[in-house]
Amino acid sequence: MANLLLKNIGLLATPTGSAAKRGREQGEITLLKGAYILVKGGVIDAVGSGEVPAGMLENAEMVDVKGRLVTPGLVDAHTHLIFGGWRQNELGLKLHGVTYLEILAQGGGILSTVRATRAASEQELAGKAAKELSAMLRMGTTTCEAKSGYGLDPEDEYKQLRAIRRLNETQKVELVPTFLGAHALPEEYKNHREGYLGLLCEEMIPTVAREHLAEFCDVFCETGVFTAEESRRILEAGKKHGLTPKIHADEIDPIGGSQLAGAVGAITAEHLIVCPKEGIASMAKGGTIACLLPATSFYLGATFAPARAMIDAGVAVAVATDFNPGSCPSSNLQLAMNLACLKYCLTPEEVLTAVTLNGAAGIRRADRIGTVEAGKQADLLIWDAPDLDYVCYRLGANLVDTVIKKGEIIQF
Amino acid sequence: MANLLLKNIGLLATPTGSAAKRGREQGEITLLKGAYILVKGGVIDAVGSGEVPAGMLENAEMVDVKGRLVTPGLVDAHTHLIFGGWRQNELGLKLHGVTYLEILAQGGGILSTVRATRAASEQELAGKAAKELSAMLRMGTTTCEAKSGYGLDPEDEYKQLRAIRRLNETQKVELVPTFLGAHALPEEYKNHREGYLGLLCEEMIPTVAREHLAEFCDVFCETGVFTAEESRRILEAGKKHGLTPKIHADEIDPIGGSQLAGAVGAITAEHLIVCPKEGIASMAKGGTIACLLPATSFYLGATFAPARAMIDAGVAVAVATDFNPGSCPSSNLQLAMNLACLKYCLTPEEVLTAVTLNGAAGIRRADRIGTVEAGKQADLLIWDAPDLDYVCYRLGANLVDTVIKKGEIIQF
Repeated sequence: MANLLLKNIGLLATPTGSAAKRGREQGEITLLKGAYILVKGGVIDAVGSGEVPAGMLENAEMVDVKGRLVTPGLVDAHTHLIFGGWRQNELGLKLHGVTYLEILAQGGGILSTVRATRAASEQELAGKAAKELSAMLRMGTTTCEAKSGYGLDPEDEYKQLRAIRRLNETQKVELVPTFLGAHALPEEYKNHREGYLGLLCEEMIPTVAREHLAEFCDVFCETGVFTAEESRRILEAGKKHGLTPKIHADEIDPIGGSQLAGAVGAITAEHLIVCPKEGIASMAKGGTIACLLPATSFYLGATFAPARAMIDAGVAVAVATDFNPGSCPSSNLQLAMNLACLKYCLTPEEVLTAVTLNGAAGIRRADRIGTVEAGKQADLLIWDAPDLDYVCYRLGANLVDTVIKKGEIIQF
Repeated sequence: MANLLLKNIGLLATPTGSAAKRGREQGEITLLKGAYILVKGGVIDAVGSGEVPAGMLENAEMVDVKGRLVTPGLVDAHTHLIFGGWRQNELGLKLHGVTYLEILAQGGGILSTVRATRAASEQELAGKAAKELSAMLRMGTTTCEAKSGYGLDPEDEYKQLRAIRRLNETQKVELVPTFLGAHALPEEYKNHREGYLGLLCEEMIPTVAREHLAEFCDVFCETGVFTAEESRRILEAGKKHGLTPKIHADEIDPIGGSQLAGAVGAITAEHLIVCPKEGIASMAKGGTIACLLPATSFYLGATFAPARAMIDAGVAVAVATDFNPGSCPSSNLQLAMNLACLKYCLTPEEVLTAVTLNGAAGIRRADRIGTVEAGKQADLLIWDAPDLDYVCYRLGANLVDTVIKKGEIIQF
């Protein structure tokens, strides 16, 4: 692999460090004008500003950034990337006032995605996701978490996770797998709740861990899905087998998910639309990162998570897409950045940290990605933009000009 | 120019006719499965479904649509495309709670765009807009209205309109020019309101008309900008010289703009966020098209125009971007379509009509563009989508695969 020298960088904007940034630090990023970056063997070798040292010019492919903005590659720390089918038919129903529960009663909603996912092969699921990942990479997402959760039985959950593994070998976006067998109670267990909990904790979690199919164990803690007590049991089972807890908390009802997140040592709590003060305090105490999903709030017509209160309380905030076929059919992390500014009133600097370093920390990758510093993996974006304000301001545009992943310039 | 034969069209979705669709007709579009389209000399020669007649296969370049969706090219009937500078710096101010009036008092807001536009040459303005038009075309916009209104003096207004004319000769998106000298009272006239009104009506409008620099005359009818009475005077002056009236009405305060629209025979009234019942009735009576701008409501954090009430009252609804450097830095008409579904609760079929035929009617082009029918200009989109629901559902994605403008396949 050729060395790369990015020169004539108008502005390099990046958080620094290898841990999530909380509180005021979330917005304290490094801004370097007239910068250069040397990449060797896929790793950032040197970052500086001013005259490029003569020695660096040798044996390096030059990339003229032409005075534009460079940031770390974007990290999408919450997606449901792997699924069969789509649910565009529900849009029309929704616009005609049909409620989610009515759609569900008609066999729609998540259960229709479960059916389509079960019916698809591992290869079909991977092929469908690969197409989406190509669009995501073009929009700047260089690393992406991906959850199971539409199989809801052992083989179909493993199939989703194996599709993620396959994709890590066949395309460029780095994927981080999360086991979300506790996404819903499958239809066949609707009168046998304890049976599914047992299956999750005693069979699926141990198998997922043993076969290294996932790094994280997630649960949808919500009214009508899993209670806080059930969620605790599932996450503790995951921990016992080495899977780090994540939790879908406070999306619709505040039933204790965010409080549990801090108590159980979850690395992230996700959604948090209706997160109460007690939940924020618990996350701050437990060091849980808030992974916020503004496009879901927007698509659902819901309110927006109390991001500022979280930052004020010392909770690190990440922002992700929640890409899924039901509540957020958008994989566009740049749009999530626009929304995080406009709807959470985060500053562009706070948003950058949220979609780079804090996203990386939310999937335990902050030692390797999420910032532009010597020693980190060379995941870089050249933006067709002069500064970070412009990126957040140009609603709905794809401003990514060039994507560099592990030191490789991606050709589209 | 080669003939084109689009075959294997999974679904052709298009409104039909050469006039704006009102009421229930707005959502009554033609859906043709297994369709083909023959294009000759840049014009649609035949549309059908089933077996392609043998004669058509000769002397035509084949385009295999692979079972996907085809629609008319999108028509963006309201943009402020031509301007100097950007205003991303105001995003940070806005997030820190600085009000628009405070920004204006600091020399920001529209006045900073006026300064930057005055300082730019015609060629610079055209070059900057050409870059944006390229992105718009890639997202499916094949025709676009463009307003002056950042010059606010004779030479700088004409310069903007000449930049539009230049762009019509140098790039592919068809532009339709609107004179909006009445966009704001220029600083140098702030104590001489009547002087600017006289300049507009007695010098600028006659010159614009004589030199065929614009087809429409627009005015920003709003508290603190132009009153309804002043707006009437400006629009009547335009009419006298052959410029068809358009009006920015009811964006912030309902000061009579929509009522005036119907009374003065405006072809469109635009924004209409706070449009009162009387305004809707006036537009319905006068045959004025409501040109709604959902991305502006969204970017401003405002409410959304009463689109359903308009449709119910028999007003034809168009949807456009309002692309401009202040209140809507988005030129993405697909995002406006998403918003029109989610926020106006229009159906995907109503939205399609809003961004094709009704947009075309709003710039008096419905005889030539806005539908896929024999005799219309061949402005076509092939979507990476199976149906219209999918287009409206995939929030923030660019689903346009292939753009055909006047029978030419655009290469990006």
